[in-house]
Amino acid sequence: MLTVNAYAAPSATGPLTPTTIERRDLGPHDVLIDIRYSGICHSDIHTARSEWGPTTYPIVPGHEIAGVVQEVGAEVTKFAAGDRVGVGCMVDSCRECDNCRKGLEQYCLKGNVGTYGGVDADGQPTQGGYSRAIVVTEDFVLRIPEGLGLDVAAPLLCAGITTYSPLRHWGVGPGSRVAIIGLGGLGHMAVKLAHAMGAEVTVLSQSLKKREDGLRLGADHYFATSDEETFAKLAGSFDFILNTVSAKIDLDAYLRLLAVDGTLVNVGAPEDPLSVHAFSLIPARRSFAGSMIGGIAETQEMLDFCAEHGLGAEIEVIQAEQINEAYERVLASDVRYRFVIDAATI
Amino acid sequence: MLTVNAYAAPSATGPLTPTTIERRDLGPHDVLIDIRYSGICHSDIHTARSEWGPTTYPIVPGHEIAGVVQEVGAEVTKFAAGDRVGVGCMVDSCRECDNCRKGLEQYCLKGNVGTYGGVDADGQPTQGGYSRAIVVTEDFVLRIPEGLGLDVAAPLLCAGITTYSPLRHWGVGPGSRVAIIGLGGLGHMAVKLAHAMGAEVTVLSQSLKKREDGLRLGADHYFATSDEETFAKLAGSFDFILNTVSAKIDLDAYLRLLAVDGTLVNVGAPEDPLSVHAFSLIPARRSFAGSMIGGIAETQEMLDFCAEHGLGAEIEVIQAEQINEAYERVLASDVRYRFVIDAATI
Repeated sequence: MLTVNAYAAPSATGPLTPTTIERRDLGPHDVLIDIRYSGICHSDIHTARSEWGPTTYPIVPGHEIAGVVQEVGAEVTKFAAGDRVGVGCMVDSCRECDNCRKGLEQYCLKGNVGTYGGVDADGQPTQGGYSRAIVVTEDFVLRIPEGLGLDVAAPLLCAGITTYSPLRHWGVGPGSRVAIIGLGGLGHMAVKLAHAMGAEVTVLSQSLKKREDGLRLGADHYFATSDEETFAKLAGSFDFILNTVSAKIDLDAYLRLLAVDGTLVNVGAPEDPLSVHAFSLIPARRSFAGSMIGGIAETQEMLDFCAEHGLGAEIEVIQAEQINEAYERVLASDVRYRFVIDAATI
Repeated sequence: MLTVNAYAAPSATGPLTPTTIERRDLGPHDVLIDIRYSGICHSDIHTARSEWGPTTYPIVPGHEIAGVVQEVGAEVTKFAAGDRVGVGCMVDSCRECDNCRKGLEQYCLKGNVGTYGGVDADGQPTQGGYSRAIVVTEDFVLRIPEGLGLDVAAPLLCAGITTYSPLRHWGVGPGSRVAIIGLGGLGHMAVKLAHAMGAEVTVLSQSLKKREDGLRLGADHYFATSDEETFAKLAGSFDFILNTVSAKIDLDAYLRLLAVDGTLVNVGAPEDPLSVHAFSLIPARRSFAGSMIGGIAETQEMLDFCAEHGLGAEIEVIQAEQINEAYERVLASDVRYRFVIDAATI
């Protein structure tokens, strides 16, 4: 067993504090990763605070992990010490069900093993990336291509793949008219990715405060949803809308912005149910859908795509002792656009 | 002008009564159709009673029309006197917008011209199929293939295409696991069509009362939704669910019956909004969509498909004087499965 420094939430209400956790001895297919950077995702906060059902404490959040391979198990073939690697939201799955066999491990019928708050193959609870090192089976480790900084790559492992996967699945490309709701951690990556895929990109944000940023990141148009005219002006004008906002929205109003055969995909999950009128869908064969991260092969594809197009997240690197303050700033939408913990400070 | 017998609703509350209406003189592209049969659709009742917004009275309902061409305009090329033809829910559209050009006249951006309750190219209100004859521009007239009785073909023009179009659009075929919610006018056609397309078909009905019928029509399985166990037993087991019921349903419960990448499509529109939880969609990339009738070319394709597979609606032919009684029976779900008016009695 390896004892490593970590930051953990001791309870739903207490601040995250320094601690140590044990990482398992390397199995034959395991990879020991020296974590260099760990992104802060809104999901971390939900879990740390038991907002998505009861959490088992202490919990070490973090599923946007970038680092360097320190050691590999005897039968590992995909990685060697010194390789630049990442770990996202899953560290394992059943590997046998229909979905796993199709490369859709995120939709594993037995439930994938979350990077934190899950139960690993050895029966132990998983602990995430706010730590100095992690041991992960090689099939769930991603390669971070040269040319992509480890710091800006970390958030790609959740924010990147969560937006890349639906854009690809619904065929976004040249000629697509795409709207991104919300310009936060997920939204800013969605803008970069959709733009790189060749789409015409519109940001729909509450206000015009981040307009300059949005256009710099690749948006062609930027509208404030607080302006009622926006909804009249843009009616029926998008093929695809990606909703990155977890707050409850007036779904019918946004659905009416879709052209015939358009799809609105939620990647954020509001706690309360949404209201939707069938008449918002029927008269233009519209769809309302959901999507969750991406499979392992697709995550690698996304990292390669980002390297090829020179895309990383826009980040603010923080020290571990700033985690609690960073959480408050995430909740206040006061981050452009992702906090990344320098793991050397953990 | 041609004066023809018809049955009209005089107000939102009065019963339909015999009357006469005028049909326009034949324009160069018009077809005069001697109506033989006219189906009774639930939409007729909604419109006759101003349940979908205010109706202009008197109104002659009916958009499931089958008959024989009596006369054609000077420049008509597609039809000749004696041809067996049908008219569905639309009698025209703008023909210029993106959707019309794609053969999606039902989603015409300027709004298609409804067979009744619409405003035709000549500025006159349209009146539907509960009449002895109708004049329609040739591009919105369908050919009813030999071998398909005019009586069983009439309901195909709405109930048939409304279910055929989404089944085709979402790629239902051999290997598809399809559920049909409701075994009524639309549902019974959906079962026949999905079965003929090669899918494994399950009916989800409130009770098992019509089970024998469902299996005879082509269903492989039949479950009662009043039995709570149904939802546990069938979780994650369908690729496609077609909801033909207009009543409000527990959408989340039905969405959980979909496998990964599954789609639930509403063709019925409940008056009140539905409640849907993003968590019912996200963990399996499910979609909730809507669909409305079909385009003209697709409607012809559907009629040809039905002729090829020997599919017609299950009908009960009535005299015109029974229309009001038939309305009450439709509302009581006491019809197997479509009333068709013998137009000779109008």
